[in-house]
Amino acid sequence: MKLHTFFQSGSAYRVRIALALKQIDYEPIYVVGGLGSTDLKRPEYLKLNPSAVVPTLIDGDTVLTQTLAIIEYLEEICPEPPLLPSDAAGRARVRAIAQVMVSDTHPLSTARVIDYLDGTLDLSEENLNSWLQHWNERGFGAVEKMLDDDGMPGTYCHGDRPTVADIALVSQVFVAKKFGADFSSTPNVTRVYNTCMEHPAFLDTAPDRQPDAQPT
Amino acid sequence: MKLHTFFQSGSAYRVRIALALKQIDYEPIYVVGGLGSTDLKRPEYLKLNPSAVVPTLIDGDTVLTQTLAIIEYLEEICPEPPLLPSDAAGRARVRAIAQVMVSDTHPLSTARVIDYLDGTLDLSEENLNSWLQHWNERGFGAVEKMLDDDGMPGTYCHGDRPTVADIALVSQVFVAKKFGADFSSTPNVTRVYNTCMEHPAFLDTAPDRQPDAQPT
Repeated sequence: MKLHTFFQSGSAYRVRIALALKQIDYEPIYVVGGLGSTDLKRPEYLKLNPSAVVPTLIDGDTVLTQTLAIIEYLEEICPEPPLLPSDAAGRARVRAIAQVMVSDTHPLSTARVIDYLDGTLDLSEENLNSWLQHWNERGFGAVEKMLDDDGMPGTYCHGDRPTVADIALVSQVFVAKKFGADFSSTPNVTRVYNTCMEHPAFLDTAPDRQPDAQPT
Repeated sequence: MKLHTFFQSGSAYRVRIALALKQIDYEPIYVVGGLGSTDLKRPEYLKLNPSAVVPTLIDGDTVLTQTLAIIEYLEEICPEPPLLPSDAAGRARVRAIAQVMVSDTHPLSTARVIDYLDGTLDLSEENLNSWLQHWNERGFGAVEKMLDDDGMPGTYCHGDRPTVADIALVSQVFVAKKFGADFSSTPNVTRVYNTCMEHPAFLDTAPDRQPDAQPT
């Protein structure tokens, strides 16, 4: 497999974790010049990924985009170790936690949205920071309650093994930490994050450990 | 099953379509006072849905949130008719199209984001409209190319039967039409939308046909 990746993309980080958990080897292809660069807008890349984003995973003739779709694919072609629980209700819970992060929270704190708020709308630094805090507090606040109220014991989001919920949580914590988000009121989120960061699949794939990492 | 729904929510519309396609009966529970109302912030509702959004689907003791997680659950407990293709690559393609709509596009045009841009940031009507157009053009532009380049024939997004990709596309077209989005440069999107809107499962569940629909 080949993975189009960029060290600082929270989305690419998700797929790197999933590949590491499943111990699938891949050849990384690094974005040249960063997420706002023209590298992702080359016609050859747009053919693979019309949204001009990372990651894109290539498995033979199959071109895969969108992190949760990619992880479901990996789960199907390489079921061990599973990244989803074995029961339908558990899978729904894990997918819901992942979607709160991937659909409700991350889209409001991507590089392209920050560029639009900063560049096109000329938002003040204070307003931009309030925006980022607002949506991340909202998302992590929801996940905090989902981890609490659901009464599912375990060191990860769902029991004692990492799932796609943990992948989504960890990647968004990484994004939120970049702008100084405060996690003091989300102890469950913090606990799960700390558990994950002791696992090599989360640690070795972390943005600052990637070969393409640059000082920021 | 019971579905917490609101006629004008693009997210609730997705689940209504899926339930209709699978011919699953349910009891609707309507949000009182609209998406910005306090009805969704009652402690009893927050216990079900900590994000304070619709939809929430209740299946016996199982509380389900997040539309794509709900639809995957319905697919597992009620496989016919399938809302995903039978092959892993096809499922990945359909899930990716759905995520472009649900993760990359809809989150930037929800009622809560519009309220924040309008209320908290006091964005001009022109800037707010440009924001909505920008992210929807971007999302539908990507889906347009995915429908085109992938060379998958058929009247729907993936062959001749509706999938979760069609559900996500139709619900976002509904959202985008509310602020006058232009679909003249996305003929594939328009073609799929028109195909879907001939299907009773998409038509009968449409926002303006719901019992809780109000004149806007």
